[in-house]
Order: sequence, then C-alpha cells, then structure tokens
Amino acid sequence: MADKLIIFDTTLRDGEQSPGASMTKDEKIRIAKQLERMKVDVIEAGFAAASPGDFESIKAIASIIKDSTVCSLSRANDRDIARAAEALQAAQRKRIHTFIATSPLHMEKKLRMTPDQVLEQAIQAVRYARNFTDDVEFSPEDGSRSDMDFLCRVLEAVIKEGATTINFADTVGYAVPELYGNMLKSLRERIPNSDKAVWSVHCHNDLGMAVANSLAGVMIGGARQIECTINGLGERAGNTALEEIVMAVRTRKDYFDLQLGIDISQIVPASKLVSQITGFAVQPNKAVVGANAFAHASGIHQDGILKARDTYEIMRAEDVGWSANKLVLGKLSGRNAFKQRLEELGIALESETEVNAAFARFKELADRKSDIFDEDILALVSDEEHAHNNDAFHYVSLSQRSETGELPYAKVVFTADGKEVTCEGNGNGPVDAIVNAIDSKVQSGAELLLFSVNAITTGTQSQGEVTMRLSKAGRIVNGVGADPDIVVASAKAYLSALNKLQSKTEKLNPQI
Amino acid sequence: MADKLIIFDTTLRDGEQSPGASMTKDEKIRIAKQLERMKVDVIEAGFAAASPGDFESIKAIASIIKDSTVCSLSRANDRDIARAAEALQAAQRKRIHTFIATSPLHMEKKLRMTPDQVLEQAIQAVRYARNFTDDVEFSPEDGSRSDMDFLCRVLEAVIKEGATTINFADTVGYAVPELYGNMLKSLRERIPNSDKAVWSVHCHNDLGMAVANSLAGVMIGGARQIECTINGLGERAGNTALEEIVMAVRTRKDYFDLQLGIDISQIVPASKLVSQITGFAVQPNKAVVGANAFAHASGIHQDGILKARDTYEIMRAEDVGWSANKLVLGKLSGRNAFKQRLEELGIALESETEVNAAFARFKELADRKSDIFDEDILALVSDEEHAHNNDAFHYVSLSQRSETGELPYAKVVFTADGKEVTCEGNGNGPVDAIVNAIDSKVQSGAELLLFSVNAITTGTQSQGEVTMRLSKAGRIVNGVGADPDIVVASAKAYLSALNKLQSKTEKLNPQI
Repeated sequence: MADKLIIFDTTLRDGEQSPGASMTKDEKIRIAKQLERMKVDVIEAGFAAASPGDFESIKAIASIIKDSTVCSLSRANDRDIARAAEALQAAQRKRIHTFIATSPLHMEKKLRMTPDQVLEQAIQAVRYARNFTDDVEFSPEDGSRSDMDFLCRVLEAVIKEGATTINFADTVGYAVPELYGNMLKSLRERIPNSDKAVWSVHCHNDLGMAVANSLAGVMIGGARQIECTINGLGERAGNTALEEIVMAVRTRKDYFDLQLGIDISQIVPASKLVSQITGFAVQPNKAVVGANAFAHASGIHQDGILKARDTYEIMRAEDVGWSANKLVLGKLSGRNAFKQRLEELGIALESETEVNAAFARFKELADRKSDIFDEDILALVSDEEHAHNNDAFHYVSLSQRSETGELPYAKVVFTADGKEVTCEGNGNGPVDAIVNAIDSKVQSGAELLLFSVNAITTGTQSQGEVTMRLSKAGRIVNGVGADPDIVVASAKAYLSALNKLQSKTEKLNPQI
Repeated sequence: MADKLIIFDTTLRDGEQSPGASMTKDEKIRIAKQLERMKVDVIEAGFAAASPGDFESIKAIASIIKDSTVCSLSRANDRDIARAAEALQAAQRKRIHTFIATSPLHMEKKLRMTPDQVLEQAIQAVRYARNFTDDVEFSPEDGSRSDMDFLCRVLEAVIKEGATTINFADTVGYAVPELYGNMLKSLRERIPNSDKAVWSVHCHNDLGMAVANSLAGVMIGGARQIECTINGLGERAGNTALEEIVMAVRTRKDYFDLQLGIDISQIVPASKLVSQITGFAVQPNKAVVGANAFAHASGIHQDGILKARDTYEIMRAEDVGWSANKLVLGKLSGRNAFKQRLEELGIALESETEVNAAFARFKELADRKSDIFDEDILALVSDEEHAHNNDAFHYVSLSQRSETGELPYAKVVFTADGKEVTCEGNGNGPVDAIVNAIDSKVQSGAELLLFSVNAITTGTQSQGEVTMRLSKAGRIVNGVGADPDIVVASAKAYLSALNKLQSKTEKLNPQI
C-alpha cells in the first residue's frame, strides 16, 4: 500500500508572517475550520509565545478543531514550550513544534551560541516538550545551509529524546531539488535512528522551486510530511503552495504513488477565504487557484479541447472547487435561508446578535445588488468581522463627487471610540479625498504602501474588495473592505487598516 | 569555461496567448526593446501566420531589434514558414521556429494524421525553413507525452535536415523534474546526431514546477536553452518565469555553473512594463518581481538581517532593479527634461507630435500630482498608446457623485469615431454607474469578467491602474487605464476594452 503523505498547513503561522497578513482570532478560526474541512492532517495554528493574541488564537482553535492535529511553534526553550502546551491543552490531537538554528551563519550571527550549546538546547527542548505530548516536531532552522556532520549529531540526539517528526527547513529558499533531496537522503542514511521519526520538508519559494524542492525531499529524500500554505502565502516569495503540492501528487500519481487525505473540492474555497481575509490577491496565472488556471485562449488549443478534453487538460477545474458563481440568495430570502447558507459555507457566527447583524447587512446588500453569490456572503461576513469588537473606527456613511477640472471632494462619517465624526477632504481622486478626509481627524502618520481592488464575483454588479496596506514606524498592516461601491469599500479598508495600526500587540515572528 | 545558457523569451508569443493579454504592435515593440535591453538571447516576437497584426508586429520588431535574435513561430507547413520568413526579413539575426504535435493523443485527435505523415511533414518544414535562415528551431508539441521511439525518429530526421535547436515542450505542464530531465537525457543519448543541435526546454506551470522542470532539463537532460516569459505570463498557470530561471541560475552558480548574458538590473523594469501593458497584476508573494519578494516582516528575521545580511537574503533587491521610487520630474520640468527622461526609460515616441501630446498629458498630470515617478511616466505613455490611432472610443471627461442612501450617478463624455457623446447612468457604485452610462450608448453586450486596480507607486497620490477584462462571444480582452482618480482610470479602462473588442482581428493561437 502506498505511503501516506502528511499535509502540514502553516498558513496561520508562517503564512501570517507575510507583511500585512496578520489575522484576528476570529479570522484564524474561520481558516482553521476550512483547513479541517479540507482534511489537512496538521494545522500549525500559530506561535503561542509570540503574543497574547497568538496564544488565544491557538487556544480557541485547539478547542474547536477535532479532526486535524493542532500544532504550535515554539523556540527551543522551556518558557515557549510551556506556553505552547498551555495553548494546546484542549486539543484532541496536539503537536509541539520546536526549532533552533543549526547553520554556522545563524548560530554565530543570530544566536551567538556554539554548536555544542545549540545541540544541548535542542535536546532539552524536545525532552521538555515530550512531557506535554507524544507528538513533537523538531526543525533545524536554515537546515539546508547547515554542516551535515553537525546536523546528524543534533537530529540523532533529538530523535533519541523522542522527536517524532524532523523537519528539514530550507529557510531562505536557497535549495534546488536534486541537492535538497540528496541532503535529506544522506541525513536519513547516516542517522542510525532516522526510522524512528517522520521526515518533513519546509521550503520557501524565493527561486520559484518550493514545490519541486518539497517533492524532491519526498521522492529522493524519503520525507513523508510537507509543510505548506494556502496560495503559497508567506514572507518574501512565500511558502510551498498547498494546492500545487496536492494537485501535483494527485495528477502524477503514476510517479509519486502516495496517499493523500485532502478533500480537493475544498481547495478553491480555502484559497478564496485566505485571500479575502489577508487581502493578498492571487494572480490570474497562479497554478490551480488563479482565475486563469483553467482558462484557454488559443484557437488550436480550444479546438483540441473540443476534440478531446485530455488533449490539454491534466486537471479538472470542478474537482478543485471551481464552479460557476451560484446564485444562492436574493432580496426575498429570509433569515433562515441566510443562516442555513452561512452554515453550509462553514461560517458559525457566535451569537444570534451576530447573525442578526449579518442578516441586516445582507438585506442592505440585497437592496443594492440583485444577485447574491457565496463570495458576497463570505465578503459580508469578513467585512462584519473586520469592523468588529474593540475596533476604534467604524464606517458610517460617505458622500463624494468628482468632475473633470475640479478637485475631487469627499465627506466621510465614521465613529471613533463610539463617537460620530464627520470630516471632509479633497484629493487626486475620490479615494485620495477619503483618505485625506479621514486623516484630517485621525492624523495617523501612516504611509500607504499598496492599494488594490479586486472584484469578488464577475459582472459590474460585483462587489469590490479593496486592500490598503499601511506602514508606520516599521509596522505593516493590510486593511480590507468590501462593498459594491469601491469608494465605500476604500473607506472601509482604510478604517480597517487604521484599526489594525491601533492594536498595539507586538509579536515575535520566528523564522524557520 | 562554463556553457552558455540561452534565454529564449516568448512573452510576445506564448505569453500573449493568455486570455486578455493581447497587445498592440506598439506595445510589443516596447516590450521587445526592453527584452533587448535586458540582453535576452532570442525574442519570439509572435506567430506570423496568426493574423496580419501579428505579421506586422514581427516585421516591426525584426527591423528594430539589433542585439537579440528575432524569432517567429510557424506551423509545419510552407505557407506558415514563408510568412514567418517574410516577417523576419529585416532581422539581423533571425530564427524560424516550426512545430508539430507528436503525442499519440494530439496526432490522432487534433491533427488526424498518422505518425509517418507527421514525420514527413516535420522533415519538409525544416527543409523549407532552412531556405530562409540557418537558425531553425523545431518543437515536437506535447513532446513530454510522446512515444520515445517515435520522437527519436522525428528528431533525428529534423536535425539531419538542419534544425539547429530542438525544443522539448511540456505543453500541458504535466512534467516532473526528474522524469522530464531523464526523458531529455535519453533522447539526446539515443539520437545519433543529437550533438548537432542545441536542446531547449519549454515548460508550463500547471503543477507549479515549470522552473524546476526547465532546470532539470538543463542539468539532467543537457538542454542549453530555456524558453520563458516575463512574470511567467502565459495561458492557464503560465509559462516558466524568466526572472526565476535567471535568478536561480545566478544565485546557485555553485550548482548550475552556466553562463548567462542577461542584465539582471532590467528584470523589475521588464516585469512592470509587461504587467502594465497586459493588465496582468503580479501577486505580492511572487518570487523576484512580487512587491513582497524582498520584504521581511518577522522580528527574529529582521534582527537576523541587521546582524548579517546573508542570514536571510540570498539575492539583493537592488540587483534586479528594485529601487525606491525616484522623484524624477515635477510641475516645473520642461519639455526637454521630459523628453530626456523618456529616452532614458527607453521610450522612443515616433514623432514630435507624439512627444508633444505626451508632454501635454504630463503637464496635466503634474498639475494634479506633485511628484512624478518613472512609473507614472510609463503609465502615461502606456495610456497614451492605449488611447491611440484608430481606436473608436476616446475618453474626454466625467463627473460622478455618490452618497450613502442614494444611487451613485455618473455622467461621461467620450468620443465615438470622432463624435462627442454624452451619457448618464446609475449603478451600485461610481464604476458601475460609468459602465452603465457608457453602455447605454455603446450597447456592447460584453460581460465584465474581472476588475482590478493597482496603485502604480506608493502613497495616496499614486495613480491607480485599472484593468477591466471583458468577454463577448468567446473573445476575452483586457482594457487598461491609469489616472490619479481611479474612477477616471476605470472609465478609460472600460473604453480601452471596448476598443479592443471592436478590433475584429481574429488570430490563431498555436500551442506548444
């Protein structure tokens, strides 16, 4: 029987480290539920010691997720590990993932530790983690640039201490498939107790080879776990894309011959959810989940498709969850129909008050947009959550006008800590005018790094989803807002970004 | 001495086959010049027999480009080849690239030909092409799914006829690195005259492995040419990304040990140019050319960077042409300064009239936007070219307003075949209102497939670049418009898309 390939998703940990991709607890829970629905084997829910917010998110996910193993990252020290264990307490299946750098460069320049000190700390960390769970993963950070002899010593020692998964990380995306696969193979051959652990790969896409490196780690190196993220989200060029790994292994089953537990029909919904929550758009020519991934333009080509589907298609769009936009609800749909659709979409709002608020927004949207698609409902709920809870700023209303030859003008009403504020501004365009209007009151001092709009469904009736990325004092946040009117969506996105800037939580972002 | 790796760019041929990525002659010329500036070895400028427009574009590029070889694709028949030769006549270095399908599926279902007929046609095509140039490339379409014995027969025969490059195409993106490399290796070993040709790889990214497949073709298979596109543009998940190939080979010179002629400082300018012209945005977490490719968020990580740049950086952003936005021009800049900057950016406007028109638009922009960056100038010229020549529709002016609780309203003035048209409309937002207003006169019957906005530079003063993708009767076009006011940019983008829909040119899109 074919070996099982374990899919370890780190969208909520390494993915979230993308500048601007930070998520709230509620957003993380929604993604975790979708990952569970997709039957991901392990969900790395965060890094418990990073911040109180991370801790709470992991704790919440650990208590909700039943089918997937829930994992927290921790540095190789007792405090981090205890914190991870505490956050994971309620989990049905829990894993502690501890790491320490093993490359000469990182040990010397970053840790300022000798190899022997690093070895000792790795051993201590795994030993301590085993007090809390039998499922302990160890990662040698920057493993692909580490000395092989030293790596053998460290990995043999941590396996002896009970590490059940060894994750060979290509932290900086420097690997090439053949070399990376052979390094892993050589490690497994040289380490006497290597068969006592599952071997894992964790790659970054800086040279565009994360997927191939991961799969070389599996085929040449004998790894049986791949760490990856939805849409390849992650710092710099991102992590290995889950959807590409899964579809490569399935489509080329003749070559890979591995078992996968993933429900691939959940891939596109997961992709849309993550891009909607983080504001990281997926480019059209992205494999599997890009808008063009299954679109064909060429004449010869289309002719080919008509003659035989297999001529040019190696995967089917509908298998991974692409479907024509389905008209699901309209103006006349009632509260029950709406609530049921929310449940079918896997959205569990916490209270009846929240359902009522979402339904009110739905009715408001249905007044302005005759056809409501699943994507609209997802955006509505996202938007609801963006404008949430303890946020300082909430959008109320706006008016704006522009005319060739005159300076565009906007008036925005929003609440700041519950008090209504009205402001006016001018700018190069309506969006600039809105930003200037709001900033005349808020005086954020933030710099706008990125502004993008993507339509959520097709057609001009579509809602626009606006992402604004702000930077202030080295911090980067993405604000997201959705509305059929992109000027309104922009105002919401700007206020959402300002809310994120206000939240003072500092967190550590470890790097493996 | 290390072998030379030939970089063959097919942005203008295979890249253009992306639904909506079709380009005008002027746009193709601008991209070709940028490719030459980047020192690309071979530029595939199009497929001469596809349409009169393609023919004219290749002809123009052949007469302008001096340093790179200019190539036209052609099917394996005399008519196509003669057409390619005619288009390439003026080129200093010219290549004819002919192809025919060799996989059982394609021969039977698409060509309805026997293997012997295919073999004969391949031989005839190469023999005929050699009448026009000594530089003839042959591609077995769907090569990676072809019978190896048959492929050996065909390739040996075409090399004997004088094919100087053999391109092993993975047409449907089905390959995995090890297998693909070994197939190529086996072909080269089995074909007695294989050393008489340069071997080439052409991969698609459907399973996320185009870069690794191409490089396995080089390392295992002995290929010395890689076919690729800027930003990985191309049908479905796109082609091999030029920037990833080049940076992988350079960054891992220790492993690849190949010589490259590419000027990497031109990579980011080329990426921006192609995305600006085609309206295909590059996602932030795209390797090398994504906005985040060199951005680091994590605390540990940033600490690492401060301590030693090499800890996390394997490439330098500035080496590939990333630079802080440079303030280049302002309100007071004169016509000469503007013209000089155009030249420095490699933009050669054809007549003084065009320079004057562009300068007028520059002054108009400078009135509304105090700092003018290189990206603004590029957008301005693109925009100038979008709204060009024989286009039916030109934007004149608009006024619009929206207010919470009321239906957004827009009035647009544009010219249709030289006559001024004023129209009004309402919609869910200003953009919808504009589209409805214009459509009330034009009655395009087109469906809006995609709407996206990206800021060209950072800051709210930035110009917005709007892409609207329309579909009508199976045809897909992208309209692009830029303006500091995104509502105006949307109107321009919509009119630009309508212009593209009006152009009746049908063309063939071959598939290799």
